[in-house]
Amino acid sequence: MGAVEKAPVKPLEHLPLPELCIHNGTILTMDEPGAIIEDGALLIHGGRITYCGPRGQMPACPGARLLDARGGLILPGLINGHTHAAMTLMRGLADDLPLEQWLTEHIFPAERNLTPEAVYWGSMLACAEMIRGGTTCFCDMYLFAHDVARAVDQAGLRAVIGEVIYDFDSPSYGPLENGFAVSQDLVRQYQDHPRIKGAIMPHALYTCSPSLLERAGQMAQDLDCDLNIHMSETLHETNTIVERHGARPLAHAASLGLVNQRLWIDHAVDFNADEIERLAQADCRISLLPESNMKLASGLANLGRMLKCGLKLSLGTDGCASNNDLDMFGEMDSCAKVHKAAVLNPQVPQARTVLELATRRGGQVFGQPGLGVLRQGALADVIVMDMDQPHLTPLYNPYSHLVYAASGADVLHSVCHGQVLMEDRRLLTMDEDEVLAKAREQARLLTGREVL
Amino acid sequence: MGAVEKAPVKPLEHLPLPELCIHNGTILTMDEPGAIIEDGALLIHGGRITYCGPRGQMPACPGARLLDARGGLILPGLINGHTHAAMTLMRGLADDLPLEQWLTEHIFPAERNLTPEAVYWGSMLACAEMIRGGTTCFCDMYLFAHDVARAVDQAGLRAVIGEVIYDFDSPSYGPLENGFAVSQDLVRQYQDHPRIKGAIMPHALYTCSPSLLERAGQMAQDLDCDLNIHMSETLHETNTIVERHGARPLAHAASLGLVNQRLWIDHAVDFNADEIERLAQADCRISLLPESNMKLASGLANLGRMLKCGLKLSLGTDGCASNNDLDMFGEMDSCAKVHKAAVLNPQVPQARTVLELATRRGGQVFGQPGLGVLRQGALADVIVMDMDQPHLTPLYNPYSHLVYAASGADVLHSVCHGQVLMEDRRLLTMDEDEVLAKAREQARLLTGREVL
Repeated sequence: MGAVEKAPVKPLEHLPLPELCIHNGTILTMDEPGAIIEDGALLIHGGRITYCGPRGQMPACPGARLLDARGGLILPGLINGHTHAAMTLMRGLADDLPLEQWLTEHIFPAERNLTPEAVYWGSMLACAEMIRGGTTCFCDMYLFAHDVARAVDQAGLRAVIGEVIYDFDSPSYGPLENGFAVSQDLVRQYQDHPRIKGAIMPHALYTCSPSLLERAGQMAQDLDCDLNIHMSETLHETNTIVERHGARPLAHAASLGLVNQRLWIDHAVDFNADEIERLAQADCRISLLPESNMKLASGLANLGRMLKCGLKLSLGTDGCASNNDLDMFGEMDSCAKVHKAAVLNPQVPQARTVLELATRRGGQVFGQPGLGVLRQGALADVIVMDMDQPHLTPLYNPYSHLVYAASGADVLHSVCHGQVLMEDRRLLTMDEDEVLAKAREQARLLTGREVL
Repeated sequence: MGAVEKAPVKPLEHLPLPELCIHNGTILTMDEPGAIIEDGALLIHGGRITYCGPRGQMPACPGARLLDARGGLILPGLINGHTHAAMTLMRGLADDLPLEQWLTEHIFPAERNLTPEAVYWGSMLACAEMIRGGTTCFCDMYLFAHDVARAVDQAGLRAVIGEVIYDFDSPSYGPLENGFAVSQDLVRQYQDHPRIKGAIMPHALYTCSPSLLERAGQMAQDLDCDLNIHMSETLHETNTIVERHGARPLAHAASLGLVNQRLWIDHAVDFNADEIERLAQADCRISLLPESNMKLASGLANLGRMLKCGLKLSLGTDGCASNNDLDMFGEMDSCAKVHKAAVLNPQVPQARTVLELATRRGGQVFGQPGLGVLRQGALADVIVMDMDQPHLTPLYNPYSHLVYAASGADVLHSVCHGQVLMEDRRLLTMDEDEVLAKAREQARLLTGREVL
């Protein structure tokens, strides 16, 4: 888990005939040397890239579907390291409140009304937004996770999905015992799926007892899957865990046997330098959520030190109740800027590093070989950006524009696992009008409020 | 100057026949009570709003051009409180560097090659981006200001424009003496223009001698116009001024007679509580630039205290060399989030307050009666947002969506001073392909670098 292996390069004449050809653009491979291929082309077969190089050297591809990049940028689909997709239904329901009041007066009451249908349509809405915004892969923690997976399967995206479990009864599965059963079932059901993986997802150290956490860790080991958990989101959380268990969050998690290469932490705001070093040594993985942390006034992760330690890092939006969108371009922009502001250093992080968090480095967090990079053998998750627009003109440096000037609306085409999900800004795997209508209907049912 | 007066409401039967009718949307008036008009309509004549109310009560408007809001939101055009429009030509030229290195190695060398044509096309590119992104009014400080004004006049936007002056020779006007002449000429030339005003714009306290500043202040008084200046951008600037003049920036400016209702300050990062109080009492005005301050790691203004003091505040993007776009939606999002993060308080600022900075409050900074608000008698600067999209669904609270989820790409129509500048995302006052081509050509000439 975790390592992105380099697939062996096969001689072109032995490759199967490609199903899809993306051409007429500049390819940002996002590989480690940062190779950029002008006038490049990609050939795709069976969900993988079979050719990535100059158009002039591309083998013939009779019968392949052609996707014209129209002179734009071709890059790996973006990776959203942590969200709660179906919370699109609560987008803008309540903002600018203290966390406790926001949760108890607005979010929890709405969530008590959740149904499988609500989660399905909320997740479909999220998938529509993500495809439009260039995201092709995400990690999701929510209720009714089987219905999240149903939406992702339909939409054609790639995801790691888990049912959130905690000490109290859940609006989806009821008592905790069922939560473990649902989680295990999800991991088993999708173990051979080409795009979807299940994972074990206890909510947080402060909502899960030590025995729940130990059992979750054991289950992740038995099923050979990820253990994803919110951890170290605020100083308040740290204080709570120290008070209850006499140890800081990471030490508490370690005492329960959780700190190993299966551990995937969301937030990671309040880790100190020693803890960051320990996380790197244990090969743990992190999803940073700077916009959520800003909006909820939680604090800010020590990105500079995490990068120095070589910790595996991805970037995420968090759910739409707290961000309030799934636009990874906006998240990259905020990530690059706020970390500079926080330590008054304009040099960290660099734009290219931030784009790596949303592509190759994010792929390492997801632990799927060939994710987040464009090269022969890599997964065929690809987006094309329309750069012929005022706010992206002139173009000296593609990394700068993608991080500091582009938005989700600039994505022209989107491909996941070789399937075209959006062509010329038209969604191909769902009826968008139906998704918007159903999502509005479900939002009304959840909140009892009229929505436009 | 400064006060937004309420125009007297005229009986409808005495109004001239409207030229333009915007209908079929929800109107966010952005007036102080926060009135929202469902199924509203606007009538416009002679650059002003003659009716703002329910569609059902709208007087007949035979012959008026109809603009269909298609069920979206109708709100005042956004106001960008500070930019350097023509720096679009240096967008992404260099990023993630220390300020000094960025300026001396990249920006200044490019600016030495500036020509009136470069500034004109760079400003046209900026106008194209602003119109697309919903901005209808901005304040601009740059070189060759007459060519900025030429572009703004052509594009149909509203702006306050000034020629930047400083102690050293300028790439545009040469020696300082000419700078004063150009500035005075600009103010006089546009004094009766319906959309453009000139202002006096010394660059900063650290680049302008006391005698330059005193003369600039006197000229602003004689011409009855604004004095716009970068001030208190960094702690380093404060230290420099204290070292040179034995006083903090505001006290130094006050000693030169500048702290009065003509003073309009950009940045305002390093003012302490007493200084903020003093600025409010003197009826000075501020443009906050949080994204620029984040990206250049300059620090962050004390927005909470400024709001409490009743200081006149607007929000701006700064130039594209340092931000790197002119998207006021992104700026609002960052403003709302980063100020919460900075003081760990999720309640300040509220989304609606931030939208006010970019509309009514911003209009107060520009000091033009009826700017930034929709009501009878107000200036007819109006945008329409397309809300029927995944990332804006469902819609519980329009303020939340506009600040936290919308982007410039969601603007459908744009109107300034009653003229339709964009309809169905098509620019009407310029040939967009020509602007992009000319801007690329000028960018190559400026930087000697190949651009896409």
